[in-house]
Amino acid sequence: MKAFRDPVHNLIRFDKDSQIERMILDIIDSKEFQRLRHIRQLGFSFFTYPGAEHTRFAHSLGATHLMKRFIEQIERTKNKHVNVTIDEITDQRALALCAAILHDIGHGPFSHALEKMITVDKVNHEKWSVQIIKGNTEVNQILESYKSGFANEVAEVIERTHNSRAIVKLLSSQLDTDRIDYLLRDSMLTGAGYGTFDLEWLIHVLRIGKVGDHIEVGLDLEKGLNIAEDFVMARYYMYQNVYFHKTTRCAEQFAMKIFARVQQLRASGYFIEMPYELEKLLSAKDLQEVLQLYPYYLGLTDFKVWYYIDKWCNSDDLVLSGLCKQLLGRDLYKEFVTKEGFDSYKSIINLANLYEKEHGIPVEYILLEDDSHSSAYKDNYISSKAKQDEGQEAEATEQIFLFDKSGEAAELSQVSRIINEIRNNKIRFKRVFVPKDFRNLYIKKYG
Amino acid sequence: MKAFRDPVHNLIRFDKDSQIERMILDIIDSKEFQRLRHIRQLGFSFFTYPGAEHTRFAHSLGATHLMKRFIEQIERTKNKHVNVTIDEITDQRALALCAAILHDIGHGPFSHALEKMITVDKVNHEKWSVQIIKGNTEVNQILESYKSGFANEVAEVIERTHNSRAIVKLLSSQLDTDRIDYLLRDSMLTGAGYGTFDLEWLIHVLRIGKVGDHIEVGLDLEKGLNIAEDFVMARYYMYQNVYFHKTTRCAEQFAMKIFARVQQLRASGYFIEMPYELEKLLSAKDLQEVLQLYPYYLGLTDFKVWYYIDKWCNSDDLVLSGLCKQLLGRDLYKEFVTKEGFDSYKSIINLANLYEKEHGIPVEYILLEDDSHSSAYKDNYISSKAKQDEGQEAEATEQIFLFDKSGEAAELSQVSRIINEIRNNKIRFKRVFVPKDFRNLYIKKYG
Amino acid sequence: MKAFRDPVHNLIRFDKDSQIERMILDIIDSKEFQRLRHIRQLGFSFFTYPGAEHTRFAHSLGATHLMKRFIEQIERTKNKHVNVTIDEITDQRALALCAAILHDIGHGPFSHALEKMITVDKVNHEKWSVQIIKGNTEVNQILESYKSGFANEVAEVIERTHNSRAIVKLLSSQLDTDRIDYLLRDSMLTGAGYGTFDLEWLIHVLRIGKVGDHIEVGLDLEKGLNIAEDFVMARYYMYQNVYFHKTTRCAEQFAMKIFARVQQLRASGYFIEMPYELEKLLSAKDLQEVLQLYPYYLGLTDFKVWYYIDKWCNSDDLVLSGLCKQLLGRDLYKEFVTKEGFDSYKSIINLANLYEKEHGIPVEYILLEDDSHSSAYKDNYISSKAKQDEGQEAEATEQIFLFDKSGEAAELSQVSRIINEIRNNKIRFKRVFVPKDFRNLYIKKYG
Amino acid sequence: MKAFRDPVHNLIRFDKDSQIERMILDIIDSKEFQRLRHIRQLGFSFFTYPGAEHTRFAHSLGATHLMKRFIEQIERTKNKHVNVTIDEITDQRALALCAAILHDIGHGPFSHALEKMITVDKVNHEKWSVQIIKGNTEVNQILESYKSGFANEVAEVIERTHNSRAIVKLLSSQLDTDRIDYLLRDSMLTGAGYGTFDLEWLIHVLRIGKVGDHIEVGLDLEKGLNIAEDFVMARYYMYQNVYFHKTTRCAEQFAMKIFARVQQLRASGYFIEMPYELEKLLSAKDLQEVLQLYPYYLGLTDFKVWYYIDKWCNSDDLVLSGLCKQLLGRDLYKEFVTKEGFDSYKSIINLANLYEKEHGIPVEYILLEDDSHSSAYKDNYISSKAKQDEGQEAEATEQIFLFDKSGEAAELSQVSRIINEIRNNKIRFKRVFVPKDFRNLYIKKYG
Repeated sequence: MKAFRDPVHNLIRFDKDSQIERMILDIIDSKEFQRLRHIRQLGFSFFTYPGAEHTRFAHSLGATHLMKRFIEQIERTKNKHVNVTIDEITDQRALALCAAILHDIGHGPFSHALEKMITVDKVNHEKWSVQIIKGNTEVNQILESYKSGFANEVAEVIERTHNSRAIVKLLSSQLDTDRIDYLLRDSMLTGAGYGTFDLEWLIHVLRIGKVGDHIEVGLDLEKGLNIAEDFVMARYYMYQNVYFHKTTRCAEQFAMKIFARVQQLRASGYFIEMPYELEKLLSAKDLQEVLQLYPYYLGLTDFKVWYYIDKWCNSDDLVLSGLCKQLLGRDLYKEFVTKEGFDSYKSIINLANLYEKEHGIPVEYILLEDDSHSSAYKDNYISSKAKQDEGQEAEATEQIFLFDKSGEAAELSQVSRIINEIRNNKIRFKRVFVPKDFRNLYIKKYG
Repeated sequence: MKAFRDPVHNLIRFDKDSQIERMILDIIDSKEFQRLRHIRQLGFSFFTYPGAEHTRFAHSLGATHLMKRFIEQIERTKNKHVNVTIDEITDQRALALCAAILHDIGHGPFSHALEKMITVDKVNHEKWSVQIIKGNTEVNQILESYKSGFANEVAEVIERTHNSRAIVKLLSSQLDTDRIDYLLRDSMLTGAGYGTFDLEWLIHVLRIGKVGDHIEVGLDLEKGLNIAEDFVMARYYMYQNVYFHKTTRCAEQFAMKIFARVQQLRASGYFIEMPYELEKLLSAKDLQEVLQLYPYYLGLTDFKVWYYIDKWCNSDDLVLSGLCKQLLGRDLYKEFVTKEGFDSYKSIINLANLYEKEHGIPVEYILLEDDSHSSAYKDNYISSKAKQDEGQEAEATEQIFLFDKSGEAAELSQVSRIINEIRNNKIRFKRVFVPKDFRNLYIKKYG
Repeated sequence: MKAFRDPVHNLIRFDKDSQIERMILDIIDSKEFQRLRHIRQLGFSFFTYPGAEHTRFAHSLGATHLMKRFIEQIERTKNKHVNVTIDEITDQRALALCAAILHDIGHGPFSHALEKMITVDKVNHEKWSVQIIKGNTEVNQILESYKSGFANEVAEVIERTHNSRAIVKLLSSQLDTDRIDYLLRDSMLTGAGYGTFDLEWLIHVLRIGKVGDHIEVGLDLEKGLNIAEDFVMARYYMYQNVYFHKTTRCAEQFAMKIFARVQQLRASGYFIEMPYELEKLLSAKDLQEVLQLYPYYLGLTDFKVWYYIDKWCNSDDLVLSGLCKQLLGRDLYKEFVTKEGFDSYKSIINLANLYEKEHGIPVEYILLEDDSHSSAYKDNYISSKAKQDEGQEAEATEQIFLFDKSGEAAELSQVSRIINEIRNNKIRFKRVFVPKDFRNLYIKKYG
Repeated sequence: MKAFRDPVHNLIRFDKDSQIERMILDIIDSKEFQRLRHIRQLGFSFFTYPGAEHTRFAHSLGATHLMKRFIEQIERTKNKHVNVTIDEITDQRALALCAAILHDIGHGPFSHALEKMITVDKVNHEKWSVQIIKGNTEVNQILESYKSGFANEVAEVIERTHNSRAIVKLLSSQLDTDRIDYLLRDSMLTGAGYGTFDLEWLIHVLRIGKVGDHIEVGLDLEKGLNIAEDFVMARYYMYQNVYFHKTTRCAEQFAMKIFARVQQLRASGYFIEMPYELEKLLSAKDLQEVLQLYPYYLGLTDFKVWYYIDKWCNSDDLVLSGLCKQLLGRDLYKEFVTKEGFDSYKSIINLANLYEKEHGIPVEYILLEDDSHSSAYKDNYISSKAKQDEGQEAEATEQIFLFDKSGEAAELSQVSRIINEIRNNKIRFKRVFVPKDFRNLYIKKYG
């Protein structure tokens, strides 16, 4: 029995004598998984919440631990009223656990800031995960030596194309092991109490049932309604306060502008050193090509990118060195609040032009626009894949089901006024961040 | 009121309207303090405890928060029975808070591994702290604009030479704000429950009294004896289990061997790139000279060193690249346990020679010897400075006093059998770590 | 410094050297306050939640502790933008603390079950509190020796007629020290995680401002909106799950039926012994008279009533002894669920008549009807007193205000969609409880 | 699945579909077990710690929950190195769980105060438990309908005479499910943080092994040493601070003196009403006879005794009414501290005689002597039963074993200096409590 200590779950145990859990331990020991120790779970949130230093590594362990607990509970509470075979869940325990431990294997450093830089035609971390699982990697080898074709299956669960719908939804849905772990973990480590809910009760009221022809994982209608609400609310509060915190968003804008400046300068012929892995990735012409460069992608970590941010502090280009110094020293821009809101920001272009002249900083580095949006609970049923245009929130947009004693299913927003209220209302923050002294210029000009 | 969220203390608040706390906030914003965001509190412990990613930055905030609470409690419970003026504590609130926020400002990356590399004549993190506080830094400027000569005073508290003994001991003694915060924090973040004790009760029973001519901070004899024991025991357990965990110690040995190899290779004329700040520091001839290079020291962070570990994975030198790959992939050596214990390890030199021949790895990179020792409670009264030969445990080795109602002081180990038992018994682990396959060779040879 | 240990707040401290806090300690030592040790906070909830044994005594300490913390926070964050003098809060600290410690002094045993029995013309626990404070009691003496007329003032705060509106609302409003303590306490002790919210943050964002001519205590608009929602939701969940739990409600119905039977029997000339204090109280003709009997009321405790329940187990009347045995043994009735809901219950009268004939139990002891309702957030502005017809929820039905930086107030349900959704929707449970074997009869008859 | 919410363990679940757990649920529903709702776990501690209202009912559920978890862990970690069959543990799961749920069924009200009153020749709560299990009770019927002779077996486990030594020790030994639950529970509910230890880790390192011919439950030597120490220390602190708190001890002395006075008065021919159950029990001539009166014993609860304490407040005997009023109002005696300690108290008899003359209170009601002692860790191996003269600490005085990888056992105090230090040192408090004004008399006389 191998035990990891964990601030959220206390002990996360894997049984070395079980073939399946031994495989999980081998995956944890793999080079690709060890890399997740160097990817912060919350990107730039540590600037806002000094405790938010936790990594994708710890989160992946936590999500796998929850997957084990979910499956145990489902085994315990086979719903007698519904003629449902849960074999697809219990027989495929290996699949569920491997998908859980590997679901974030394709996450890159620096949250989404870097992702956008190397994005060729909408490549996201899930595509990278799939590529790493299928590619010539230690992880792939471990999966294939369990069963030929197994890597493919794991990838399908992560892509949400696997035909075992229940396994797919245990990993990514409105109420999955991934988001349960990250809410609890992010809440605890940031120290912002919003993400708490009674995990033990939630697991206690887990049920399976049928919705149409599909087996679905849901909650007991009578005992689970309030914990379902509490859980959706926790997510809503975390977006409102933590994930979309202005300081965090501003830091991410800084990072994106830094990468943009580097590319701009290189395009203009300047020599700006960057991680050679990144250079390689940027050379790819399309999605197909960039994904083939996954060995380089695997060379990227938070520490490598921070090293270059630090190095670029010494650049001759004052815009680049300025942004880097400010990011490293957490000497960020301030939100520029006007009574008219976001749209009025566009009207301060003239002022920004003035500021550009005074300080030699191009307008696009003066006005950092950020438009963050998410949804705490989505209504539309997304078949097996998220839609392209859902942006950041694409990962898991399905519904939460509540089952009554006869096994009949009700969708959460149908039975909860509160959830119905927030289901289609996006959480949205449109902001502009400007240099601290920009405001003075504004006052001088407009009084 | 500026509030930091914190997983340990929930809210850490500083009042922007108070001159003193405004100064603390300015220090936090300084370049030198922001650097602590990139120094892990526990060096390599994250390899053992995935949650142990917390930084010196968060710890320093926590220690300062405790200093505020300690001083408030002391103000509340002026001991009427003893003719003690606590003015030296309350009047010097600014001094106490500044010393608390800055006590780890001189910490370098990679725990003590790197420290040993650049050590010229016993320079340690406290000497760096003093240098940074007195040098041409933002921190120095902030302190001096509060009061001329103030930086010097703060440095004296950290060096334990300041004549306000009470302030010195609030920061570094057997029962100080520094170690209270780190025990609670390390315990929570590692997930190892050993470091817990009832902080609220400990603060509640804080007392001041006189020991000889000195004002001392201690605990109420009647109400504080058990919490004092519990606190010392917490520290004892943390050393036994967390700080001296074999995986953590082995990783630190790896880091030291990597640095040793780099220097060895450079001495032999190979070109091995290293952080230019480190190169600069290594060029110093003595303590005086190296301390003057503090601007370079301030350029060192965890991410910079990890970047080079990653880079050295591609070195032509197989010893260096091997060690680096193993460290990054957490593919470490195993403890070699013999019935005869540590001393018998020396007798396996012959075997190591054999292994060297087979694998081309010099003996000093095959047998990694580690001798960790500390003491949960020291007996001898150390005047104002720790002694040279106390090594790692030098920081604070004084006694805990318990005051009865008449203000008379008793030393903890005199009134507690338990503490008396452990006071002079070093916690000590002597180990040798060897490559995984070394054991096979051993069995082949010795059966 | 006197410290009480508390599972919710850890330490609750009162300073013996402060005149005001010394008064609080004297009140705690008074005979009338010590009686609260024998009144469970949650009546019959211990039948549902084995941990819910906590008393009005502990809750009153907790509410007073919160009152201290609230006032400290208000002192720290005087709102500069509003021309508000908070003197009425800080000068009247004594008043606020005394009202907090005494707000439940008039609570009787057995939750509301007994209250209804001795109710003559709507006397409730607040009227008793006022009577005890003004009467010839130790508590009255302590208050009056602080300041002549002070007992009256304290009573006015509890009655919500005192002209210091802010003090009144700190004790009883939508966001008061009373309900904050009971939500946290009930949640922790029942073990039902619903009532949790981040107390530290809630206190951190407390603000005062003006609404019309009144000083109001509210929260910071920007930082406090989500905690306000979280707090209202916590209350909503506690009502849904804990306070209105069917087992708890059924036990309370049992108690009411037991008291009803005792009175019925006595009215018919049977001699049924009951607590002489209760006998005395029942002899009163009107509100005026019953309140004058407060010394008898003060003789009532949970243990006294349970003693008689136990004694009545031996009654010759089989209805009475049956109900008592069943209550003591927690062998309660079951909820009778029909598809048609509560109203259809009325149609099973015929069946109950049949059951009466078989078992000799009058219909009114076969069908126990319970109609529980509350509201998590009320909309209508209740001037200084609750209205007569609000029943159980009368205590505090005002609004929560959020203040922006300029001091302008917004009412919570105006700025929160979620709260707006639930504000006028009563939480309501209409149930009928029937003997376990009643259902069989139903099936026999209706199939 | 029936779930109890619990403040300590969150959810305590029993599976209705399992025959064994269904039996546990039936026992919980029995009249005899429901009675435990009215027996406080900590007697008079609620006078010292307002939160300490928890009952034997909740503790018994907790101990049973831990028994389930212990057995699960033992099943998971069958020690391969030792040729041990754990069948005696797993096969006898029913026995272990029934013994756990019933181990406190014989506890009477008022802690040990009343026990001493009705003690005829050393009858204690364990003898009552056995009697209730074997007698004509609902509990007996439930056990016997599981298997004929099963009640006897359960009684043997509680008496520690059952030949399945491992089951016996899981319930009562130095490291048993009983004391683990009560330490955690008492610590949480009193709010005194001393009893905390990492339960998850303790369960994780549970091992079984052989000591001589016996199967023993112990801990992993390497991983369990510190948690074993921490656990023993937790118990030590709880005795020092909570169980032997002077206020609690004084209240218990009051209760004993009240019962003594009642008997004294009745012996002198006064009519003093007392619970008829108690009257009946007091009429028994010897152990055999008193145990046969168990139906009367089962009629005793905390509320019944408190009812009489309250009633006796109106007694004509001023000594009795005085003591009762003081106990109910928590207006207790004060500890009389002299420099010479306990023995010198005997020399103040003269003074007490004087006080007796002034106040008409016999000396034995003026000087309340209390001699509390326990041991945090006992050394001598107690075969299957505790010895007669161990008093309060008799329940479980055996050793804690630590097993190395080869299954070899070491006794805790042999490998831990700390435990060795405290193993034979009794925790002992000898005190005398006197009326508050007695001290004045003392000063008047002796200055």
